[in-house]
Amino acid sequence: MRWGRSQCDKDGVGVCHPLFYRPSAVGREQRRWNLGGRRDFQLLPSRHPISCSSSAEIMSVLFFYIMRYKQSDPGNPDNDRFVLAKRLSFVDVATGWLGQGLGVACGMAYTGKYFDRASYRVFCLMSDGESSEGSVWEAMAFASYYSLDNLVAIFDVNRLGHSGALHAEHCIDIYQRRCEAFGWNTYVVDGRDVEALCQVFWQASQVKHKPTAVVAKTFKGRGTPSIEDAESWHGKPMPRERADAIIKLIESQIETSRNLDPQLPIEDSPEVNITDVRMTSPPDYRVGDKIATRKACGLALAKLGYANNRVVVLDGDTKYSTFSEIFNKKYPERFIECFMAEQNMVSVALGCASRGRTIAFASTFAAFLTRAFDHIRIGGLSESNINIIGSHCGVSVGDNGASQMALEDIAMFRTIPKCTIFYPTDAVSTEHAVALAANAKGMCFIRTTRPETMVIYTPQERFEIGQAKVLRHCVSDKVTVIGAGITVYEALAAADELSKQDIFIRVIDLFTIKPLDVATIISSAKATEGRIITVEDHYPQGGIGEAVRAAVSMDPDIQVHSLAVSVVPQSGKSEELLDMYRISARHIIVAVKCMLLN
Amino acid sequence: MRWGRSQCDKDGVGVCHPLFYRPSAVGREQRRWNLGGRRDFQLLPSRHPISCSSSAEIMSVLFFYIMRYKQSDPGNPDNDRFVLAKRLSFVDVATGWLGQGLGVACGMAYTGKYFDRASYRVFCLMSDGESSEGSVWEAMAFASYYSLDNLVAIFDVNRLGHSGALHAEHCIDIYQRRCEAFGWNTYVVDGRDVEALCQVFWQASQVKHKPTAVVAKTFKGRGTPSIEDAESWHGKPMPRERADAIIKLIESQIETSRNLDPQLPIEDSPEVNITDVRMTSPPDYRVGDKIATRKACGLALAKLGYANNRVVVLDGDTKYSTFSEIFNKKYPERFIECFMAEQNMVSVALGCASRGRTIAFASTFAAFLTRAFDHIRIGGLSESNINIIGSHCGVSVGDNGASQMALEDIAMFRTIPKCTIFYPTDAVSTEHAVALAANAKGMCFIRTTRPETMVIYTPQERFEIGQAKVLRHCVSDKVTVIGAGITVYEALAAADELSKQDIFIRVIDLFTIKPLDVATIISSAKATEGRIITVEDHYPQGGIGEAVRAAVSMDPDIQVHSLAVSVVPQSGKSEELLDMYRISARHIIVAVKCMLLN
Repeated sequence: MRWGRSQCDKDGVGVCHPLFYRPSAVGREQRRWNLGGRRDFQLLPSRHPISCSSSAEIMSVLFFYIMRYKQSDPGNPDNDRFVLAKRLSFVDVATGWLGQGLGVACGMAYTGKYFDRASYRVFCLMSDGESSEGSVWEAMAFASYYSLDNLVAIFDVNRLGHSGALHAEHCIDIYQRRCEAFGWNTYVVDGRDVEALCQVFWQASQVKHKPTAVVAKTFKGRGTPSIEDAESWHGKPMPRERADAIIKLIESQIETSRNLDPQLPIEDSPEVNITDVRMTSPPDYRVGDKIATRKACGLALAKLGYANNRVVVLDGDTKYSTFSEIFNKKYPERFIECFMAEQNMVSVALGCASRGRTIAFASTFAAFLTRAFDHIRIGGLSESNINIIGSHCGVSVGDNGASQMALEDIAMFRTIPKCTIFYPTDAVSTEHAVALAANAKGMCFIRTTRPETMVIYTPQERFEIGQAKVLRHCVSDKVTVIGAGITVYEALAAADELSKQDIFIRVIDLFTIKPLDVATIISSAKATEGRIITVEDHYPQGGIGEAVRAAVSMDPDIQVHSLAVSVVPQSGKSEELLDMYRISARHIIVAVKCMLLN
Repeated sequence: MRWGRSQCDKDGVGVCHPLFYRPSAVGREQRRWNLGGRRDFQLLPSRHPISCSSSAEIMSVLFFYIMRYKQSDPGNPDNDRFVLAKRLSFVDVATGWLGQGLGVACGMAYTGKYFDRASYRVFCLMSDGESSEGSVWEAMAFASYYSLDNLVAIFDVNRLGHSGALHAEHCIDIYQRRCEAFGWNTYVVDGRDVEALCQVFWQASQVKHKPTAVVAKTFKGRGTPSIEDAESWHGKPMPRERADAIIKLIESQIETSRNLDPQLPIEDSPEVNITDVRMTSPPDYRVGDKIATRKACGLALAKLGYANNRVVVLDGDTKYSTFSEIFNKKYPERFIECFMAEQNMVSVALGCASRGRTIAFASTFAAFLTRAFDHIRIGGLSESNINIIGSHCGVSVGDNGASQMALEDIAMFRTIPKCTIFYPTDAVSTEHAVALAANAKGMCFIRTTRPETMVIYTPQERFEIGQAKVLRHCVSDKVTVIGAGITVYEALAAADELSKQDIFIRVIDLFTIKPLDVATIISSAKATEGRIITVEDHYPQGGIGEAVRAAVSMDPDIQVHSLAVSVVPQSGKSEELLDMYRISARHIIVAVKCMLLN
C-alpha cells in the first residue's frame, strides 16, 4: 500500500472509500465510514483503489473496535491518533510522502506519554514499501529507546511496490526480525483475519515499556477478482465500469446498515494554552556585550520554557553546540534528545506540535537540516507550527569545513510556503526571534551564528516579523547596504570606514528574510539613489540577494549588487573566511565605491 | 568516532595522524603511515584527535594486514576501497557528513561485483553515532538484498556521541541483532584486540553471498590517560601541551620504524572508457510528434547504454513512471533497483561513479529528491560526476497533489556548486541533455515533465551546455519571454496569439538553467527594450526568475517580471493548473501587455 505517492493530498477520496472496508467480524456489521462529518466519499476512477484494499480489515478493526475517539470531534485532544500518509480530518499531518508517518506518530506518542501523561494512544499504518525509507528506522530506534508503549505501528505487507515486487516480498519474518531487533514488541498476523487483528491490537494495549509492531500479511486489490496480488495495478486508475462492478460486488457483501460506534476516549489530557506566549522579562543584555546568537538562542529557549510549560525542545546530538543544552539543564523533562537522525527529529517535532499540544523547537547545525528537507517540506504543506533552529551557518563557522557550513539553508527554507525565516544579528534580536516564532502561525526557521557577536540592540528595542531595522542613516546616504546576521557587523564596519572618507551608507539589518520588509528596502533604496548592496554568508543562489532583487523588481530605478559566498569555501578562521569569500567590510567598501563610480 | 562532523573536509589531518595508529601485532612493527605519498601529517591542536583513537587498531589491521592496494597509486582501480567520512587521497567521496559512507561503499561494492566483476573489496568504517542515521539502514538493506559479499562494514562502537552517551551505549548486542536482522553476516569483536580483528576480517573474506558487519567495541580517546571513554571530549580541541605529551607517550610505544607494505591488489578490473560518449544516431523524432520528456529521457538512457557499456541506471521504485524501465528492459544487468530509499540511491550512484568506473544516472520523481538533499550536497562537494534525473516536476504533473509536484528542485540544485541543471523542453533536447550529462564534469540534474509535449527541434539541432535557443524573434519584438520545459509551449502559444494583435515577443528556451546563457538573455533583452518575462513551473524562490534576475543585475536597463507558482497548488488537470497558477499562455499575454503599458 502506498498511500503517499498514489493519492491526492487534500482529501481522503480513494483511500477511505467505505466500500473498500468490507464486512467483517467487527460487530458483524458494517456501515458507511464516517469521518469528521463527511458521510459519503466518492470513488473516482482516476484514483487508485487497489492499494488501500489490502488494509481494509486493519482499518475496520482499528476504527470500529480498537480506537477510542469522538466521531463528532476528530481533533479532540483525548482521541486516539491515527497516522498515515494521507490528509483526513482525522490525520494531523499531511505525511504526503512515505516513511515520515512513523516519526510523526512517535512525536504524538511521546507527547501523550511524557507531556500530556494521558491515555490516548497512537496508531500508524505503513506499507512494506515505505519501510525501505531510512527515516522509518530512525523512528523505530526512537520509539523503543523512549519506551513508547502507547504506540502501535502496523506494517501492511502486501508485497508490491510501485514498480513490482519489493525487497522482502511476502517474507514477513524479515519485517518481524527487523522490528524485534529495533526493540519492538512484535506480532505477525494474517491481515485478512479480523479476529486475529482484534486479538493482537488488544494484546498491544497490555504491553508496557515497548512499542508494538503488527506485521500483517496482506494482498493488494484484496477481494477484487483478477486484481488481487497482481503486479502493475499500483498507481493505475481503474476504468469506471470496472470500478462500478467492484463496488457492487463489495456492496453485496455488506450485511447490515446499522451504525458502528467507536468507543469514547478517556478524557484525561490536560488543558493547554500555547497562545500569546511572552517572555517574563526583557532581554538581559547590554549593548556591547559579546555573545554568539546560537548561545543567546539556547538561553532564550530556556526563558521561553519558563514562560510556558508547553515549550519543548528537540536536538539531534548537537546540544552542546546549539546550546539547547541550557534548556535541557533547566527542563530535562521537556527536552527530547533525538540523536543523529535529523529526519526523525523534524517528524517528531511535527508530532509534538500537532493538535496544538506543544510549542516545539528543534535544533541542530543548519547544514544538517538539508537531510530533512523532505520532512520540512511536508511539514510546510501540513501548515505545521514547528520551529526549527539551525546553528553554525555560513563560512563564519570557521574551521569545520564546507560540509558543516550551511550555505544553502536560506534557499531551502525560502521554498517552504509560508515559512518565516529569522536571521537575528545579536542576542537581543535572537531572543525576540524565539518569542515571535513561538507565537507565529506556520513553520519558523531561526538561523544562528557560531562566533560571538556584539549586542547592538537595547533591551527595549521592539521586533516584528517582516520588520527590518535601519541601523545607520543620514541625509547624505548614497548606498543602502543590506545585511543579516554576521554581515551586519561587516556593513557597520564598512559604514564607519566610509564615513571617514565622507561616503555615507545606509545599513539595514533584515531580521526576517521571509517575509522581507519590502517597504523599508524600497524606501531606503529611493533615499540612496536606487543603490542597494546585499551581503550574505550564504551561496548567492536562492539567498538574500535574490530575495531582495525579486522584491524590488517592479522598480526599474533600483539596482541591486550582491555579495555572497560564490565558491565552495575552505576551512579557516572566521574573519579570514569572511574576507576570503568577499563578504567582509573591505569588500563592501569596494562594492560601494564601484557602485558610486558607475 | 565521528569523522564527519568533527573534522575538516579536504585533508586527513587529525584523523590519520600516524601516531594514533599504535604498535600492534600486525607484523609486530609500526611505521609512519604513508598514504599517497604524504609522509608526514601534523597534529593540529585545533583538531579533535580523541574520536579517531578508538579505531586505531582497526585502521592498522585494515591498512597493513587486510587491504590490498598500491601505496604509490591510491586511485588504482584494482585497489581495495576504504570509505569513511573523510577526504583522504585514498577516499573517493567526501562523505563529509554521517551515515552516507555506507551507501557509497554499497555503490563501489555493487560496481566491483556486478560491473567490474573484479577482486577488489570495499571497507567502510562507521561510528555508532552515525548508525542512528536512517540512510545507514537503507544501505544495510540494499547490501544484503544484492548479496554484496565484497563489502565489509565496521561499526566502531565507542559509546559516545557529540553530546554524551548514545542510544545503545556499549550494548554491542543491539548492533549485532540489527545487523543480523538486516541480513548481514555479523561478527562481534573487541576493537582493541588486533589478533581478533585480523581473524574476523579474514573470515569475512571467506563468506559468500552476504556482506559482513564487524561490530567492534572500542573506546574514545583510547590509550590517552584520563581521556579514554570520558564524555564531552568529542569535538573539543586539545591544548597543545597536552597533545604533545600524548604524542610522546604514543611514540614511546612504537617498537620499530621498518616499513609495513600492504599486499598488492589483484589486477583484474576491466579497462573502461567513459569519455567522449556519443549517441550512435541522431534523435529519432519528427517535429510535431508528441512525447513526454520523461519518456524521451528513458529512451535516451537506453540509447546511451547502447553507445557505452559503462552507462548504469538506478531508480527508486519509480521505473515505470520515470521510464527508466526502458533501460532496465534492454540492459537489466546495468540497472539497479534501489527501492524506496532515495538517500541511498544517490549514495550508491556516487559509489558507482567513483574512480570513473561507470557513468551513473539515478532517477526518481523530482519531488522525492528533496529527501536526498544532503547526499546530493555532499556529492557536489566531492565533485562527483553523477547524473540525477527528476521527473514529474511542477504543477504540470496534474492530479498527484502538491507533495508530489517538484516546485523547489531547481532552487535545491542551483545551490550545488558546479552542478549543471538541464531542463529540456522536448524529446530532441532531452536526448541531447542525456548525452551532454554523460560527458559533463561534475554533477548534472535533468528535470523532466510528466505530460506529453510536442517535439519542436529537428534531429539536426545542436545543443550545448549553457546555450539557450531563441525560438521566435523578429525585429519588432517588444518583450523577451524566457521559458523552460512545459512553459516554453505556453510562451509559444502566447507569441502566436499576440502576433495576431501585432505584438511580437521573443521566445527563449533556456535548455540549461545552470549555467545560464547570460549572453543570449542580455542580447535578447536589449533587442526588446530591456523587457524580460520569465515563466516557470516552480516556486519563485530560487527558481528561474531569480536566476535570470541575478544574471542581468548589472544592467540597469533590463527589467525582469516573473511568472511562477506562488502558492501551494491543488490537484487537477495539467493545463488547468498551469492556468490556475498563472503560468499559462493567457497569463503571459496579460504580463506582456502590462509590461508594455508601463
